[in-house]
Amino acid sequence: MKIYGDIGSGNCYKVRLLCALLAIEHEWIHLDILAGDTQAPDFLANNPAGKIPLLVLADGRCLSESNAILNFLATGSELLPQDPFLLAKVQQWQFFEQYSHEPYIAVARFIAKYLGLPESRRAEYESKQQGGHKALAVMETQLMTTPYLVGETLTTADISLYGYTHVAQEGGFDLSCYPAIQAWLNNIAAHPAYLGME
Amino acid sequence: MKIYGDIGSGNCYKVRLLCALLAIEHEWIHLDILAGDTQAPDFLANNPAGKIPLLVLADGRCLSESNAILNFLATGSELLPQDPFLLAKVQQWQFFEQYSHEPYIAVARFIAKYLGLPESRRAEYESKQQGGHKALAVMETQLMTTPYLVGETLTTADISLYGYTHVAQEGGFDLSCYPAIQAWLNNIAAHPAYLGME
Ligand SMILES: N[C@@H](CCC(=O)N[C@@H](CS)C(=O)NCC(=O)O)C(=O)O
Ligand SMILES: N[C@@H](CCC(=O)N[C@@H](CS)C(=O)NCC(=O)O)C(=O)O
Repeated sequence: MKIYGDIGSGNCYKVRLLCALLAIEHEWIHLDILAGDTQAPDFLANNPAGKIPLLVLADGRCLSESNAILNFLATGSELLPQDPFLLAKVQQWQFFEQYSHEPYIAVARFIAKYLGLPESRRAEYESKQQGGHKALAVMETQLMTTPYLVGETLTTADISLYGYTHVAQEGGFDLSCYPAIQAWLNNIAAHPAYLGME
Repeated sequence: MKIYGDIGSGNCYKVRLLCALLAIEHEWIHLDILAGDTQAPDFLANNPAGKIPLLVLADGRCLSESNAILNFLATGSELLPQDPFLLAKVQQWQFFEQYSHEPYIAVARFIAKYLGLPESRRAEYESKQQGGHKALAVMETQLMTTPYLVGETLTTADISLYGYTHVAQEGGFDLSCYPAIQAWLNNIAAHPAYLGME
């Protein structure tokens, strides 16, 4: 099993973290987005969307989208509930992540950390703050009630949201007003098989 | 089972369409976003994200995110594969929809159809065209190979993508250059239990 990714990307890190937690052996193939690797014909043949992470199974079948990869790799493990409602709750948080969290927090982080917050992107950076805090507030509300997003135990929903939340301060988000999120971040990082981002 | 939604919204329509296809009885409760219904305290108590659609089960449990609702309601039906890889492929397309399709096509449609394409939003509208066509091209590539997104049969992935694709022209997207998408749209609309948007 091969995973194409870039270790600086939170979407790719989610998959690496899951593989560490479940001790899933894989070959990691680094792609350089800025060098155009994700737009090369060979890569596009495997993923026409031109994005990483991408999972390629031994038989050649391909799966893209970080959260779909997480759920596939976690099938049958304790990280993915079997109960249909809880399984849907995992997905609820993952769709929330892609729609209401990542586009704000990951993009603000990208502009600040990778582009060095140039004047030309400052307005966009600032416009991301409100949506990012809204997403964090929704998480905080849940994590004040349950230790993990879907209940008492760690699921792939937590891994999906952990990816960019644990580096949200690099996008200008101060997490000190979110004590439940902080406790949750610490819980995840205390997992015996935890792997950090870089 | 109650579903809170607005029939003009593609995210809500997906859920209505699925209920029609699977003959799922439910009570539909119309919310008016512009009147602030999704920000009312009663609604926020059920969905802190303040978004529709929202499913509320008879026992009071709540599920948000259109695509998570689709997969929950389709559990055990022919619209959701049981094979773990095919199930992950369904999710791949649904995450793609939320991340790479809806933010372009649904937003362009909203600006054109509901706001009447005001000058103040024209630049944003135009900026959505490229990303929207990129998403349509990715779909076209798949649909040139298989009649439905995940293979030979209709799944919830098709319903997720159908929601905004079938009204993409309202966002300025000309579908005449996507023959495979057009054939797929026609296939779905020919389903005996099909329900249109409005
Ligand atoms: N929704 C996708 C997003 C993946 C994504 O945006 N990947 C970025 C790196 S973090 C990428 O490959 N960008 C290259 C490009 O868009 O050309 C997922 O969750 O996997
Ligand atoms: N990712 C969500 C998006 C839902 C969404 O954006 N709903 C809109 C209507 S189409 C809404 O409720 N907007 C009200 C608001 O954001 O206050 C889903 O797929 O259900």
